Amino acid sequence: MFMAAGFAMLEAGSVRSKNAAAICVKNISLYSTAGLLYWLVGYNLMYGVDEGGFLGSMSVWSADDMAVGGDAPDYSGGYASGSDWYFQMVFCATTASIVSGTIAERLKIWPFLIFTLVLTGFIYPIVGSWEWGGGFLDANFAFSDFAGSTLVHSTGGWAALAGAIVIGSRTGRFNDDGSVTSFPGSSIPLATLGAFILWLGWFGFNGGSQLALGSALDSVAISNIFINTNLAAAAGVMFAMITSQILFGKVDIVMALNGAIGGLVAITAEPLAPSIGEAVFIGAVGGILVALTTPLLLKLKIDDVVGAIPAHLVCGIWGTMIVPLTNGDASYFGQFMGVISVAIFAFIASFITWTVLKHTIGLRVSVEDELAGMDVSEFGMEAYPEFSKS
Amino acid sequence: MFMAAGFAMLEAGSVRSKNAAAICVKNISLYSTAGLLYWLVGYNLMYGVDEGGFLGSMSVWSADDMAVGGDAPDYSGGYASGSDWYFQMVFCATTASIVSGTIAERLKIWPFLIFTLVLTGFIYPIVGSWEWGGGFLDANFAFSDFAGSTLVHSTGGWAALAGAIVIGSRTGRFNDDGSVTSFPGSSIPLATLGAFILWLGWFGFNGGSQLALGSALDSVAISNIFINTNLAAAAGVMFAMITSQILFGKVDIVMALNGAIGGLVAITAEPLAPSIGEAVFIGAVGGILVALTTPLLLKLKIDDVVGAIPAHLVCGIWGTMIVPLTNGDASYFGQFMGVISVAIFAFIASFITWTVLKHTIGLRVSVEDELAGMDVSEFGMEAYPEFSKS
Amino acid sequence: MFMAAGFAMLEAGSVRSKNAAAICVKNISLYSTAGLLYWLVGYNLMYGVDEGGFLGSMSVWSADDMAVGGDAPDYSGGYASGSDWYFQMVFCATTASIVSGTIAERLKIWPFLIFTLVLTGFIYPIVGSWEWGGGFLDANFAFSDFAGSTLVHSTGGWAALAGAIVIGSRTGRFNDDGSVTSFPGSSIPLATLGAFILWLGWFGFNGGSQLALGSALDSVAISNIFINTNLAAAAGVMFAMITSQILFGKVDIVMALNGAIGGLVAITAEPLAPSIGEAVFIGAVGGILVALTTPLLLKLKIDDVVGAIPAHLVCGIWGTMIVPLTNGDASYFGQFMGVISVAIFAFIASFITWTVLKHTIGLRVSVEDELAGMDVSEFGMEAYPEFSKS
Repeated sequence: MFMAAGFAMLEAGSVRSKNAAAICVKNISLYSTAGLLYWLVGYNLMYGVDEGGFLGSMSVWSADDMAVGGDAPDYSGGYASGSDWYFQMVFCATTASIVSGTIAERLKIWPFLIFTLVLTGFIYPIVGSWEWGGGFLDANFAFSDFAGSTLVHSTGGWAALAGAIVIGSRTGRFNDDGSVTSFPGSSIPLATLGAFILWLGWFGFNGGSQLALGSALDSVAISNIFINTNLAAAAGVMFAMITSQILFGKVDIVMALNGAIGGLVAITAEPLAPSIGEAVFIGAVGGILVALTTPLLLKLKIDDVVGAIPAHLVCGIWGTMIVPLTNGDASYFGQFMGVISVAIFAFIASFITWTVLKHTIGLRVSVEDELAGMDVSEFGMEAYPEFSKS
Repeated sequence: MFMAAGFAMLEAGSVRSKNAAAICVKNISLYSTAGLLYWLVGYNLMYGVDEGGFLGSMSVWSADDMAVGGDAPDYSGGYASGSDWYFQMVFCATTASIVSGTIAERLKIWPFLIFTLVLTGFIYPIVGSWEWGGGFLDANFAFSDFAGSTLVHSTGGWAALAGAIVIGSRTGRFNDDGSVTSFPGSSIPLATLGAFILWLGWFGFNGGSQLALGSALDSVAISNIFINTNLAAAAGVMFAMITSQILFGKVDIVMALNGAIGGLVAITAEPLAPSIGEAVFIGAVGGILVALTTPLLLKLKIDDVVGAIPAHLVCGIWGTMIVPLTNGDASYFGQFMGVISVAIFAFIASFITWTVLKHTIGLRVSVEDELAGMDVSEFGMEAYPEFSKS
Repeated sequence: MFMAAGFAMLEAGSVRSKNAAAICVKNISLYSTAGLLYWLVGYNLMYGVDEGGFLGSMSVWSADDMAVGGDAPDYSGGYASGSDWYFQMVFCATTASIVSGTIAERLKIWPFLIFTLVLTGFIYPIVGSWEWGGGFLDANFAFSDFAGSTLVHSTGGWAALAGAIVIGSRTGRFNDDGSVTSFPGSSIPLATLGAFILWLGWFGFNGGSQLALGSALDSVAISNIFINTNLAAAAGVMFAMITSQILFGKVDIVMALNGAIGGLVAITAEPLAPSIGEAVFIGAVGGILVALTTPLLLKLKIDDVVGAIPAHLVCGIWGTMIVPLTNGDASYFGQFMGVISVAIFAFIASFITWTVLKHTIGLRVSVEDELAGMDVSEFGMEAYPEFSKS
């Protein structure tokens, strides 16, 4: 759960100070919305799926259970325990956190929360049901995604990509002459803190997934997962730093932080099977991919404020596709089917949702409000009211 | 224990930057004072109470145990284990953290620490002994307060309220024409981080209380507590946001953060028995109460810097009173007796302590020092020395 | 692992804002480097030592295990389990974190990372092997250092001291007339957050060491360790505050924070055996030592940016030497031999490494770059780009 705080700090440090309070509101409210929606709808969709099916029913627990005075849901299924529920809710909120970072500094709060509602109540649970609910990816393709490289991170990444395309870039980001204006984040220390919190939270993510899978508490497995997770992140940092030193002639700290995230996302698909050397390799490629795809996005004029698409989407695909190298139960074909199925569904469903929102209640704040900063225009307050801005 | 850090960040972000270092000193020293005092005095008072009694003795462990070279205290009682001791110390520090937030920006450091000494060495342990030490609330009224909605949060809230009344408001806060000058906090991101840390810490608070109660480690109960705690906080956020949107025409982020705290405080009295729907209801009402009582305090010219009174006191009462809805072992009468007993004792004892301090060593810094900021006047340093203030 | 975040925040808040991004890069990259180096080299050196020996071999696990596709290392030795490995890696990174704080604001990034490589790949593992690997301190002197007061904290402190001497002080810190220019840290709240995170992380450090030692999970021992650790830190805070009030006429918050660290470091050598009163005494002396040695360093013109030498080195020695008071298995002679052995080796090895680096690739940024701040000169970015500096 602390990952929500990590995303909030990473994003608050990465946006300009005039939008820092707004991104804080978004993060605390998206976590709240995700929790409530996943409870009301998502859990049922996810675990109510027929074996091998595409779409869950609402049958796991009924509306009676939700009513005030009703019983607590019965989690008697082997898979669906209370702690699993809690875990899944955090995963669910993570997908929305990824989105909030990419489309920061220009999107209004209420359309964002409505999209969060669709993402956490429907899109993520449907994707999750395909594998963790026993749906077609699990039943037919032996798709293997330990703690969500594809199901969580790529889903969030596709939703973010669709949002960045539909919403458009921040005003003044891409100039007519093809140059890109740099919008440096307001607080590198806060962003660093956020990355460390996420790194820490990932131990829970990956280690906890081992527990939630219902296997006997295997402390050797857990500690191997911890070591692999940690060294993949470390390799992600170092190789993102080295790549950025080579490509741009300097170490870019935002890229170093995203290298950690990229390494973590990459190892998430299979943190147990790899040897330590393989974990370092998987994380290192993740870091390199972050450093390579970040400038690519700029060339495509896609404005990803915190760099979530390289870290979560690209590294999520990488991590998922490399699973068969170390885990014999997975096949490259099965992994590809998982990646492509999620890509098609998550991207299209998100694209449609963003487009509908755009043409109904609207997505962007006005250009004047954007230039003034969303803190003042949307919330009537400032993140740092007493400090004069240069 | 991490909750101390959460309070420190919430308060440092909520005060003006000229007092941010001072509130940091207060938080780290109150946590230290509370730990030492609870060890020296409080624990004995709390668990030395006779069954059904009002006031503990110093008999649980003697001065010999405290002496250098003495044995570690014998925690052989079923209730009083070492981990319980640790837990209670954190609870104890929490009451002082609540106070420090309310009376920030005007109170000198040493009188604050002396009050902390009284609160954590005497007031809280006596209140705690009534229930957790087996005193009269536990023995005679079947009072039920799982993890301290009343015993911890209301006690802190009453102490804070008494302090706010005796100390008076910050200079310039309430104007002669009845208007209120807004003193926005220095860093919304830090305050958000603080709220997230508290939210996280609450899982330990409520989940850990289940363990500390000595029951068998029931993982189902723990995960139900986690889910209820989390969704009560989420509902607190959303309903505080919605209420503030309706009442004030905009989403107030400080209110959203306090909505989370309010929801958490409300569910703390009974996080296990409610169904998920009931937990959402309890948290939602907590969030609404925060949004309703914050302006009420302003009308009463009570200057609560971080909004601790609505979140901890009001929601603590709400959470305690609603326990009988879901827990058949509690009665509305017993709950009311607990609330009112704590109210009378904590408020009066605090009021007397504050008044004595006021007329002896004095409470407030001078108006000049207050306007200059306590960082400079009390500590000769600044929280953010290099940033020019607007 | 969260301790890395604690060090990062403590250091980012303690340096001037023009170096805050640089220290963030250093912290995230040192943690990554330490993890990779300890894996590649350090672990073998540490646990490959012969019983009673001085220098480990590379025999515990071979290069095959490291190769991509190789097996995970076999941790079948009673001591060397996977979780121990993880723990040791964090300890290892801690030594480098101590160094980064002391020599902040003037050292280039790549020489720092090369020193980190030597420290975490060789110096720390060799020191660690003497005791935890079963080397001569363990075999011949019954040296007792529970969780690394000497092996971790003093090692880091000696490396930092050697660095501070070889590198020299920050430009403008010590004036010709003997006066010292104060360079206040950029953000007291961040530094406070860092201290709280470290405090929290220490519970894992000390409590986890109990587990890693392979003893049966003794929950009473763990909770006694928690209480002792907590109260030693609390006593460190209070006595550093009181000492600074007496010596300098005001409470110095940085000293209060370092008092907490000092108390924690002091209790780390033996957190289980002391009674609570003894733990308070050990921590209190730690806090007093911090307040006394900080001005002493200034007199010696040693420029320790965050005060790591008083907190980690001085209190590490104090904590190690006082172990025999409470633990009958240790002797003052054996403790002294451990302290002096580590002192000689860690200081000399570090001094040589720093000196070699100084005369090859160079250590310091140019004076112009130092005055401009390392954020801009080394990384081409600022930590807080939008805030005007006074």
